[in-house]
Amino acid sequence: MSIPLLARRNPVFAQKSLLGRSTMASLSSGFKRNKPPTAIVLMNMGGPSTLPEVHDFLSRLFHDKDLIPLPMQKTIAPWIARRRSPKIEQQYADIGGGSPILHWTNIQGSQMCAILDELSPSTAPHKNYTMFRYAKPLTESTLAEMRRDGVRRAVAFSQYPQYSCSTTGSSLNELQKRTKEAGMSRDTENGIEWSVIDRWGTHSGLVEAVCENIIQALSKYDPATRASTVLLFSAHSLPMEIVNRGDPYVSEVAGTVSRVIERLHERTGFESPYRLVWQSQVGPRPWMGQKTDDALKGLAKHGQKQVVLVPIAFTSDHIETLYELDLEYGKEAKELGIDLHRASSLNDSPIFIRALADLAADHLRAVESGERGHTSPQMMLRCPGCPSGRCGPQKAWFAKGGRD
Amino acid sequence: MSIPLLARRNPVFAQKSLLGRSTMASLSSGFKRNKPPTAIVLMNMGGPSTLPEVHDFLSRLFHDKDLIPLPMQKTIAPWIARRRSPKIEQQYADIGGGSPILHWTNIQGSQMCAILDELSPSTAPHKNYTMFRYAKPLTESTLAEMRRDGVRRAVAFSQYPQYSCSTTGSSLNELQKRTKEAGMSRDTENGIEWSVIDRWGTHSGLVEAVCENIIQALSKYDPATRASTVLLFSAHSLPMEIVNRGDPYVSEVAGTVSRVIERLHERTGFESPYRLVWQSQVGPRPWMGQKTDDALKGLAKHGQKQVVLVPIAFTSDHIETLYELDLEYGKEAKELGIDLHRASSLNDSPIFIRALADLAADHLRAVESGERGHTSPQMMLRCPGCPSGRCGPQKAWFAKGGRD
Repeated sequence: MSIPLLARRNPVFAQKSLLGRSTMASLSSGFKRNKPPTAIVLMNMGGPSTLPEVHDFLSRLFHDKDLIPLPMQKTIAPWIARRRSPKIEQQYADIGGGSPILHWTNIQGSQMCAILDELSPSTAPHKNYTMFRYAKPLTESTLAEMRRDGVRRAVAFSQYPQYSCSTTGSSLNELQKRTKEAGMSRDTENGIEWSVIDRWGTHSGLVEAVCENIIQALSKYDPATRASTVLLFSAHSLPMEIVNRGDPYVSEVAGTVSRVIERLHERTGFESPYRLVWQSQVGPRPWMGQKTDDALKGLAKHGQKQVVLVPIAFTSDHIETLYELDLEYGKEAKELGIDLHRASSLNDSPIFIRALADLAADHLRAVESGERGHTSPQMMLRCPGCPSGRCGPQKAWFAKGGRD
Repeated sequence: MSIPLLARRNPVFAQKSLLGRSTMASLSSGFKRNKPPTAIVLMNMGGPSTLPEVHDFLSRLFHDKDLIPLPMQKTIAPWIARRRSPKIEQQYADIGGGSPILHWTNIQGSQMCAILDELSPSTAPHKNYTMFRYAKPLTESTLAEMRRDGVRRAVAFSQYPQYSCSTTGSSLNELQKRTKEAGMSRDTENGIEWSVIDRWGTHSGLVEAVCENIIQALSKYDPATRASTVLLFSAHSLPMEIVNRGDPYVSEVAGTVSRVIERLHERTGFESPYRLVWQSQVGPRPWMGQKTDDALKGLAKHGQKQVVLVPIAFTSDHIETLYELDLEYGKEAKELGIDLHRASSLNDSPIFIRALADLAADHLRAVESGERGHTSPQMMLRCPGCPSGRCGPQKAWFAKGGRD
């Protein structure tokens, strides 16, 4: 599905277009009279849709101990947020005035639910909800919408394919906290039964969708040079403090990369040279490396002339792809003499959206039949070095479908 | 194939037993009269077979800039080797008087070659050679043996399934250097044509063999508790200095783990909770984590009672499994109240040895037919942050089959 450039670039416009919010509204009021929808809640960090939202987005982000553990966080977080706002506002201005993540998440969710209604008629109708950790719609407002719709069954579907305590873990902590605050636990009247899709980094549909976008990017080069073009998979880095607790994110991202390389070989016969590297480090403390930036410089030094950058841990465009990869590294690559193309983000990839629907349908079937619990065994295993007092109770709460 | 305990524990005994060195000797003299063998050279770090060899082993190891980059290495390495020798000698004494790696490598090699003669008659006879980086048989003596056998075609088969510049890279650097010193490059009279099997961490036979050993370890628990038993995959760690250059080892180990988990699910239906953790860190500088040791402590704190330790980056027993995992962590687990079993190392696993033969047969077929070059495209991609002056020329030399 292609959308007008204006919609890609201007999320405010995009939200009003295409997504049929009016259809949603009429469905929503219909739910009250008939069977309430099974909610498929797409959880992600989110991003500011407009420039005035940047400060609050950053403030929430730097206050989150699960994401960025800081000493004296309550004092330091507002200061960092204020200090970084002008620079980050400029970055969002440079990519069109805001983050497109809400736009893409709504498209992914509504198209997924349309397929899901066919794949899983017993749990239909399905309705997609977007729930962001640091931007609107925030957890509490999505919960309020679900209450209005009379939702009794919901799937917390993390949109981070690879699990980290600092991303999916943080979103689940927030969801548990806000649900309890709103009096919507499963054991309350009109409460919601939750189950969780917590990780899916090796799902064949995800792998296929990434693979397809790499093939598209490679098609921009001379056919004779495609097989030898370097693939640089880039994922958001993680502080070593979190890695060293036993956080599984780094391993799981590598698992995705390994499958993509294998699938690419099956489809093209290529044995593409590649590396997995890490982007978006901030602050002085050690993060997982090699840095994407350093990798580009090193490849150029070794005479590599063609590089495809592949975002591998986010499912739609956001500031780290549109600004950091495209503008910053795009410019750098040009200066270094590298002919760089970026594989598209998954955005409205039909292969990807079908994968989301398959994942949700399979999950619903397995949970409703009792074949699986509300959470995966891997989700229930806390990181051995977990410092959080919330993590254990949160997992126990979801394992019971959303009750203490 | 089972071998007597004495042979497992006493490598000196083991070397004299079972392996048919006399058969090898007669084959060896036979090669001169007839077709020389295709050499399958099993490259690994090695270990001291007896206690008096410990010091020289450590000295070579600490002198290797590819493995442990140290400031003023030539001055510091002898000092560290002397200082650590007594402690390491005691550890080897505690596991039976030496490392069994030579014993197992010889078994793996000879059994692999027997299968390979059947799988690949056009390149037969095949003869296995062991080539260690820090212990006997060292690169130069193995090369001398190959010269005596009249070898003209050899496969450098790294026995590290996952590639690191500090392991496989170091072995290849050494092989190139010693071959040139010995005047045995491909362009010399009686020179050798080399090709390289540089990484195979996701090979289905390797994955199957690890999986089998995990299932064996799980069988020691009550059937009702096997699915929930925690799997702790443990690999030798790497200094972050090397990781941050773009070394692929960490990613590739995670790729292996991801496949093993998937295959285990296919075979057992289990969705085993697991983590990949890292062992054997030394010195004050940062290494990849979480540490295996810390993970065990953390799991105990969270109430985990059953843990299977799975060595995932070495292919046979060595001090890191027999001493560190079995004696040190075994004792620690007992104190922590964890019922710990270690999955066996691959050693003489027939599934594993068959995998080695399949890998070698496929490699020989592809190289001889011209379908593949002497090296893989991934091997040819230098780490973007590579500081070595030897690495580039080494890769170019192997890409030409062992000539400048």
